[in-house]
Amino acid sequence: MTDSTTTTDYLTDFAAMSRFGATERGGVDRQAATAPDGAQRRWLRDWLDEHGFETGYDGIGNQFGLLTLNPGAPYVLTGSHMDSQPRAGRYDGAYGVLASAHAAVRAADRFRSEGRVPTYNVAVVNWFNEEGSRFTPSMMGSSVHTGKMDRAQALATTDGDGVSVEQALSEIGTIGDFAMPAVAGYAEIHVEQGRILEDTETTIGLVAGTWGARKFAFTVRGEQAHTGSAVMADRHDALLGASLLVVLARELADQFADAPLHTSVSRMIIEPNSPVVIAREATFNMDLRSPDEEVLEQAEQLLRSRIGEIERRAQVRIDWTRTHSWGQLAFQQEGVALARKAAEHLGLSNRELLTVAGHDSVNMKDVVPTVMLFVPSVEGVSHNELERTTDDDAVAGVEVLTETLHRMMDGAL
Amino acid sequence: MTDSTTTTDYLTDFAAMSRFGATERGGVDRQAATAPDGAQRRWLRDWLDEHGFETGYDGIGNQFGLLTLNPGAPYVLTGSHMDSQPRAGRYDGAYGVLASAHAAVRAADRFRSEGRVPTYNVAVVNWFNEEGSRFTPSMMGSSVHTGKMDRAQALATTDGDGVSVEQALSEIGTIGDFAMPAVAGYAEIHVEQGRILEDTETTIGLVAGTWGARKFAFTVRGEQAHTGSAVMADRHDALLGASLLVVLARELADQFADAPLHTSVSRMIIEPNSPVVIAREATFNMDLRSPDEEVLEQAEQLLRSRIGEIERRAQVRIDWTRTHSWGQLAFQQEGVALARKAAEHLGLSNRELLTVAGHDSVNMKDVVPTVMLFVPSVEGVSHNELERTTDDDAVAGVEVLTETLHRMMDGAL
Repeated sequence: MTDSTTTTDYLTDFAAMSRFGATERGGVDRQAATAPDGAQRRWLRDWLDEHGFETGYDGIGNQFGLLTLNPGAPYVLTGSHMDSQPRAGRYDGAYGVLASAHAAVRAADRFRSEGRVPTYNVAVVNWFNEEGSRFTPSMMGSSVHTGKMDRAQALATTDGDGVSVEQALSEIGTIGDFAMPAVAGYAEIHVEQGRILEDTETTIGLVAGTWGARKFAFTVRGEQAHTGSAVMADRHDALLGASLLVVLARELADQFADAPLHTSVSRMIIEPNSPVVIAREATFNMDLRSPDEEVLEQAEQLLRSRIGEIERRAQVRIDWTRTHSWGQLAFQQEGVALARKAAEHLGLSNRELLTVAGHDSVNMKDVVPTVMLFVPSVEGVSHNELERTTDDDAVAGVEVLTETLHRMMDGAL
Repeated sequence: MTDSTTTTDYLTDFAAMSRFGATERGGVDRQAATAPDGAQRRWLRDWLDEHGFETGYDGIGNQFGLLTLNPGAPYVLTGSHMDSQPRAGRYDGAYGVLASAHAAVRAADRFRSEGRVPTYNVAVVNWFNEEGSRFTPSMMGSSVHTGKMDRAQALATTDGDGVSVEQALSEIGTIGDFAMPAVAGYAEIHVEQGRILEDTETTIGLVAGTWGARKFAFTVRGEQAHTGSAVMADRHDALLGASLLVVLARELADQFADAPLHTSVSRMIIEPNSPVVIAREATFNMDLRSPDEEVLEQAEQLLRSRIGEIERRAQVRIDWTRTHSWGQLAFQQEGVALARKAAEHLGLSNRELLTVAGHDSVNMKDVVPTVMLFVPSVEGVSHNELERTTDDDAVAGVEVLTETLHRMMDGAL
């Protein structure tokens, strides 16, 4: 037996939930399978239990809750992820999981109060390790669920201290043998992490596809030398080579400022990283993202054309490989249309847009009809303790997701 | 009772000693107060015991061995350091400590065979943590010994894992309450870590002074953001700011290529160092070194003039402070003259030069008359597993240090 939840319930729950891994500056630090992630997962399990869900963890730590109104029928699955980046914001994926839990309860209750049995049941998911900061790659839980990544390989992945995913999940007690029954469709809501909705004064984003992306792994190889006594002309400085590449990445973005092209290097491992030894090696990833595949192709060619000059300048060897590449990936147009109807039914302003960031829905859209919704991010701030979405927008998001789930459970997608 | 040592003894000992922390590529990895450093210190203690020295560790882990020929008289101290950088060479300071031990035995034995009591006794030292890679700053043991650094502060210094110097020294059992008696003078021999001796076909370097140096601590402050979705114009990218500064350091060196000016950034801490979060902070040191103080002053002014432009380009705040600054520091001319006489007495080619790298002798010269000697480094390679000094040059170094110590013990300085 479930009860409908109120706006006050949602806001109270969001405040309670944001205490797990809370930071001094109002954010959270809740990386995958850390103690705060475990505590929050137990909190969600209790919440789901109290609201009549059957709960469990699968073999890669994805957390599920089933609300069965039509025994034997498939489920509409809805959720996101509760793990965070280091010193990140309270919203990000956590908002989406809580919104999904409330929306699932409300949609189910609506069928009950209407005295109808829906075509599909509803289930909530908290995907494991969407962020990929502690354990690489990101979107690990949904990648294993959709068969894009091998479970054994994911479990064997280690963090910087050599702790494996399997150990970490066992330590927080959130790994099991739950098997998610047949899924008929997937819906996710997330904060935008950009400025489009705010700049256009729109409440609901209808995600029609993703930007294209090319991701590269770089290793710059130099030679150790004394930082003081080695003659400049003799140096093979891996950190100089890496720095020239970081600057080049920004120059590429500047050249396609109107395209747009987003480029970044954010993590670098330097060896030996000693105050008096010229670095022998620097490794890092570089991302290029654009809605325009032609821009990505031109940017990669420009990058390629500049490598030799940087090798000569720093006297290093640069090895680089393209690790990921995708063009614009579309979500099902039927899902976008359904979400638009749901928003308009509620009188909420809405517009189609593309997502730049990856989401678990990008995996799910390849196996089931999928709806992806955004709510506005204040000033586009993301992966930052100051990330924020207004209560009004967050509440509107729960309402449009409720309407969307109700339609999907009714077989509209 | 001591015995004179032979060239074969020295070469055998050097080979034995190079096994502590040996790496696959023929180098050593023996950072301060690690297990290999502890094992090597015990090996040296046994060697000194066998050769009649009285041994002990002081309160900051400096290792001493006293050879007393004139009870109550002060000591000529000689030594260097056996700790290394990560994946470094076998020679560096370790050569100097072993050369000192052999030279001390030989010089003492010469007095005995001459039937004379020297004016001064002789003692060997293995300074703690000259390298400064695990525990910052470098030259820690000699800085505490000469009163330039507070012992309690040094003991409380922690490594990257939070282990303090005091804990680490206790774990390897090389901290004690030995009090070094009065020191009349200091002599050190070290590999050059540069190309001057090799390029000029000279066997012995007579160190007349140090290059000047200015060292800066930089903190670049940005804001965390999503690497993909954050609009480029909104980014405050600390790693981009830091990379622009690394490139600038090299540009400074290029501008004074004939001066010369050596510049470097070799260690950087990036926060949060996550693959999908724009860095909020990057911290690093930058060193400028030159024999010409005017060049250092001009280089610092150029650096200062470019900071604002980098702050604007990366939209970051750059805080920087000068942590160290010294001009050309001279060793006592009487010490240089004594060393020259010793080399010429042995028929060894020699020349005055400056040291670019810091050494424990730079601390010691401020408290007692000091002699600093160099032997050639093949191709100037240093802080690298491929570092090498030929056996002939190493053996010549032991001989000139023996002659130097004998003269110093005789009261010549």
